[in-house]
Amino acid sequence: MHSVKPLTLDENRFFSSDPEQRRTALHLYERIKDLPLVSPHGHVDPKILAENSPFPDPAELLVIPDHYLFRMLYSQGIPLEKLGVPRADGGETEQDHRKIWQTVADHFYLFRGTPTSVWLNHELYTVLGVRKRLTSETAMDIYDQIVETLSQPENLPRAMFERFNIEVLSTTDSPIDTLEHHERIKKSGWKGRVIPAFRPDNVTDLLYPNWKGNIKKLEQVSGIDCGTYKGYIDALEKRREFFKEMGATSTDHGVFSPFTIELDPKQAAKLYDKALQGKATSEDASLFTAHMLMEMARMSIEDGFTMQIHPGVFRDHNQTIYEKFGKDKGCDIPMPTEYVKNLRPLLNKFGNNPDLTLVVFTIDETTYSRELAPLAGHYPAMRLGPSWWFHDSREGMLRFRRMTTETAGFYNTVGFIDDTRAFPSIPARHDLARRIDCRYLAELVAESVLELDEAEQVIVDLAYHLAKKTFKL
Amino acid sequence: MHSVKPLTLDENRFFSSDPEQRRTALHLYERIKDLPLVSPHGHVDPKILAENSPFPDPAELLVIPDHYLFRMLYSQGIPLEKLGVPRADGGETEQDHRKIWQTVADHFYLFRGTPTSVWLNHELYTVLGVRKRLTSETAMDIYDQIVETLSQPENLPRAMFERFNIEVLSTTDSPIDTLEHHERIKKSGWKGRVIPAFRPDNVTDLLYPNWKGNIKKLEQVSGIDCGTYKGYIDALEKRREFFKEMGATSTDHGVFSPFTIELDPKQAAKLYDKALQGKATSEDASLFTAHMLMEMARMSIEDGFTMQIHPGVFRDHNQTIYEKFGKDKGCDIPMPTEYVKNLRPLLNKFGNNPDLTLVVFTIDETTYSRELAPLAGHYPAMRLGPSWWFHDSREGMLRFRRMTTETAGFYNTVGFIDDTRAFPSIPARHDLARRIDCRYLAELVAESVLELDEAEQVIVDLAYHLAKKTFKL
Amino acid sequence: MHSVKPLTLDENRFFSSDPEQRRTALHLYERIKDLPLVSPHGHVDPKILAENSPFPDPAELLVIPDHYLFRMLYSQGIPLEKLGVPRADGGETEQDHRKIWQTVADHFYLFRGTPTSVWLNHELYTVLGVRKRLTSETAMDIYDQIVETLSQPENLPRAMFERFNIEVLSTTDSPIDTLEHHERIKKSGWKGRVIPAFRPDNVTDLLYPNWKGNIKKLEQVSGIDCGTYKGYIDALEKRREFFKEMGATSTDHGVFSPFTIELDPKQAAKLYDKALQGKATSEDASLFTAHMLMEMARMSIEDGFTMQIHPGVFRDHNQTIYEKFGKDKGCDIPMPTEYVKNLRPLLNKFGNNPDLTLVVFTIDETTYSRELAPLAGHYPAMRLGPSWWFHDSREGMLRFRRMTTETAGFYNTVGFIDDTRAFPSIPARHDLARRIDCRYLAELVAESVLELDEAEQVIVDLAYHLAKKTFKL
Repeated sequence: MHSVKPLTLDENRFFSSDPEQRRTALHLYERIKDLPLVSPHGHVDPKILAENSPFPDPAELLVIPDHYLFRMLYSQGIPLEKLGVPRADGGETEQDHRKIWQTVADHFYLFRGTPTSVWLNHELYTVLGVRKRLTSETAMDIYDQIVETLSQPENLPRAMFERFNIEVLSTTDSPIDTLEHHERIKKSGWKGRVIPAFRPDNVTDLLYPNWKGNIKKLEQVSGIDCGTYKGYIDALEKRREFFKEMGATSTDHGVFSPFTIELDPKQAAKLYDKALQGKATSEDASLFTAHMLMEMARMSIEDGFTMQIHPGVFRDHNQTIYEKFGKDKGCDIPMPTEYVKNLRPLLNKFGNNPDLTLVVFTIDETTYSRELAPLAGHYPAMRLGPSWWFHDSREGMLRFRRMTTETAGFYNTVGFIDDTRAFPSIPARHDLARRIDCRYLAELVAESVLELDEAEQVIVDLAYHLAKKTFKL
Repeated sequence: MHSVKPLTLDENRFFSSDPEQRRTALHLYERIKDLPLVSPHGHVDPKILAENSPFPDPAELLVIPDHYLFRMLYSQGIPLEKLGVPRADGGETEQDHRKIWQTVADHFYLFRGTPTSVWLNHELYTVLGVRKRLTSETAMDIYDQIVETLSQPENLPRAMFERFNIEVLSTTDSPIDTLEHHERIKKSGWKGRVIPAFRPDNVTDLLYPNWKGNIKKLEQVSGIDCGTYKGYIDALEKRREFFKEMGATSTDHGVFSPFTIELDPKQAAKLYDKALQGKATSEDASLFTAHMLMEMARMSIEDGFTMQIHPGVFRDHNQTIYEKFGKDKGCDIPMPTEYVKNLRPLLNKFGNNPDLTLVVFTIDETTYSRELAPLAGHYPAMRLGPSWWFHDSREGMLRFRRMTTETAGFYNTVGFIDDTRAFPSIPARHDLARRIDCRYLAELVAESVLELDEAEQVIVDLAYHLAKKTFKL
Repeated sequence: MHSVKPLTLDENRFFSSDPEQRRTALHLYERIKDLPLVSPHGHVDPKILAENSPFPDPAELLVIPDHYLFRMLYSQGIPLEKLGVPRADGGETEQDHRKIWQTVADHFYLFRGTPTSVWLNHELYTVLGVRKRLTSETAMDIYDQIVETLSQPENLPRAMFERFNIEVLSTTDSPIDTLEHHERIKKSGWKGRVIPAFRPDNVTDLLYPNWKGNIKKLEQVSGIDCGTYKGYIDALEKRREFFKEMGATSTDHGVFSPFTIELDPKQAAKLYDKALQGKATSEDASLFTAHMLMEMARMSIEDGFTMQIHPGVFRDHNQTIYEKFGKDKGCDIPMPTEYVKNLRPLLNKFGNNPDLTLVVFTIDETTYSRELAPLAGHYPAMRLGPSWWFHDSREGMLRFRRMTTETAGFYNTVGFIDDTRAFPSIPARHDLARRIDCRYLAELVAESVLELDEAEQVIVDLAYHLAKKTFKL
């Protein structure tokens, strides 16, 4: 018979096991553990907080929306259908959420050593009160306990938001979004600060699926005729204004490459017209996106939005999965990414302007020390986004610090960004990030690179002030 | 006078020196140290085990066939002739093996910090019973001791195989090989399991030296007319069948790039015909190899062979050495390698098929976290080959785990592969790999990423089960 | 009120905090800490030692010439004018050196975790006798103390040179330099060994600013008509001869790419003539530079100069800063760099010749383990330059050892190179490098990769002998 093993969270988790470093890391952690969470970039659905309905069950809460989780199970031969991932083509999927949860539990060993297991154990323990390790044997007991827990008023989304000590949460929204959920939150009288961010990929990428339909919607929500390039630009500016009124302080750009180029307005207009006629080529799209990054930088200087660039991903690599299940199904794969030549036009035009804050991310770690830290360590407008996506992890975050600090310092970085659509994982992600920073600083103190009193200041900046400052929160 | 220093092997070697991690690593190591060695991919000459003749002397056993060793000595100005490396052009080389051994001993300091010294010291100690460190002074004594040791019946190749506790050893063989040595081993009644692997580079690369002669031989050994592309494919299928009868469970593909593409059979046939006429261009060869990887994947799904790809090496970089000494003389240099676009056709066609097991290797470490772990962490057919060649080392294997585990987990990797032509180094290589995995897991336990009982399961899988499962042994 | 915190230097700084490793590292460090400094490549202005005038003040000594320092302050919005960096366009800059020093002190927290703070604290403590940490509050006291200290005869440049225990210092000089300062040092009777190095970029790069003017000067200093390619080559050979008479033992080549190619002399002459007519294209320049690297290797075999290549930097990325302040203002950004194909022509022609010593540097760390260590671990002529520029740091130097040692060993590296224009930072830089090597070796000893007595030999080679041997000093 299997014995049930207790789930525990060690107070020294993720610190170095060197006793001197561990003591210092814990000392630093104690200074920041109760600081509010600042979440300036993420993908939580604002509807959750607008409606404030109870979360239904662990499969719905923790499995079906989490592509980190289901991609790994898929890689070991478990069909996505069996995990309840909804099919774009309307095909059948598992509807019994108990069965889905049991499948996850049966294969939870696959996540050993990954951030998914670290985050999930943290959520189970601190958010959901679970005290048993998730195994085939305990799966149903834990399922029942979570369902019961989620039905309590103190576990409604807004109550969780408050308990998590979130000072501000930014969602990511397209220019054609009406922000109705943000509106509803505002009007509800609830004090939680939930703000939008402006992500225009679906109208700036001429080859985005249904681009023309999106332009139609942009026309509707802005009330500006987008039949010309000039109207399109005006409409975007008007939407930024609206986003600002709704609390937004930043934009985000998910581009294939960080390529930037300044086209003259006539040339840009020509590409735009071509796209309206459905004739844009992939080269046209690439040029137009590059030009629109310049335009967005210009607008940011005018309206004060912090600008983020997330480049370098080959989206929907697996055609079969894309056709069956649609976007964001764990088959987006990083590519080598070049920043030095690609960002030069933008940095030469706007990079010396302290009114711009440009946060650049990468998923190609080779660029940390070679390209990004030297650029951020020179241009006043540029900052380094934290380790992202696959690298938002214990080793990944350590590599980020090791590869960037010596050239760019701590103060050209921007604090932690959880970038998550999994609302209840927010505290787990911030906790891991804070602990890794404590660990890194403890190492620097132990090796006499920093004095302890310096580390005490830096850790508070990394955990709290840098995000607020960078994103003007 | 120089004092003779004792050669020792510390029981905690290669573990972290942190006392907590070291204890845990040793605890984990004790669970696996007596598990049999599974060697699913290597380059040992099967003739050694077919003939079972005594190994002659240390120069012949440890120096002349080891390109890791002689390339380093060459890099410091020692001519390969002086190390007895046979010349392709028939030129003279050192014949006095004592002199060769003395040269190695005189320069053994060059290997400080390299896996070569780690492996060699392990072989000297555990396989050959040497208890003195190799220096200029001790070289001749050690030479004599080794010659004496090798003459004992317990040190015949088959006896070593048994003492090494090798459960199965795979060689690498071309489709035109008759597998006579495998045949002879089979018929000898000896119980050691030695199996071939199917490596068709010399008939799938249209520009391989003497490709047409190889096709002629393929015709002979298969009994199928290879005058047409259709016949060529049939012949390859027939040879795979024969390899399977001889115990093979895998193929291997040493390609310049992991480029894959599906040609229609007519186009493939046209390239094949062109090559038969001696007119293939380098672009033709590249396309044909890319197409043949697709064909090989198709065949693997049919016959169940695990498929391995080893790309990314600029072979024979040094033209002078190539002309004087031939292939595999330590002047093969890694190149940047791209997997995301190159493997897409193959992965899109076959990657969702759980009947395929595709093990992908790299010698470009930048792809571990950027490309390979994300691909293996998604496609059911794909697995990550372990750190290879220059990276089959203490730091190299640690980097592999650090860069891949968080995205692909442990269970999309395939255990250790020694990939060696140096038979007596097999235990040394497995010992180092096992110790590095113990060390990595001990760190995860000490930092509360894993529980100890989880690490105890993982280490057994890494040291034994994953290789057996991946290669269907 | 702020208390004044003492500035201290821990005797174990930069060693691992693991007690076993720390003890061993200190033991190794004690063997080398008093060895003379060998500085075979740097950018100290020889005028400093020729004139031997007192250094004026901390801003002039430590801030204005140090692009590591002012680029970081610039990245956080402090104008270069405010730091006294001279303007190429004659514009105004801060002239009050006290104000400049105060600005640095106010922002010294930006350097936490960077080598700049490590070096600066070391200089303040050991060279300038400061015992207070640099803060806004202590800035003026420290300024006064430094001015006082610098006025003492024991702090004149030559006295410092002797106190630093510098055995030899190489500057970097162009072929059109008259070496007058070297001449003056020689004639002064002072015993300090200061030698030039031959860096011909300004005459080998056809698109170098004022290339034609430089050729004119080459003609003057050599006395050879450079109207033809033949004359140009003769002039370069004659200048090398002169440099050799003046003590030079090496050349250096700062090229955009390590591309090499052998042109026939007629083709080279055609490119040269085209350039003289002001018609060289960027492709012409690239070919000619590649050809001249071959020529320089040939000359090195003839005159025995060690040849260095420093490739891979996008110079003057920020056009605005370049126009306002000129070259070398902290906006040079590394690029991905390819060595395997690019260096092949040179290595195939000269790489097997032990009369050549070719030291190759990189600022693209991905090439350490993938390309450079395998090349250096094979070709007798090639050696690995140490981690360079942005990577001349605690983490950067550790990564260099971790990524190169297992493939190239220690003996294909060349010791430490400080590469600095900041004369008083020389001891700090060597101290950091020596400590990192002690630390790396201590780890190898603690993990039983090396015996302690081996590490004791290696550390002396790394700290002293390898540089002397490589650069024939």
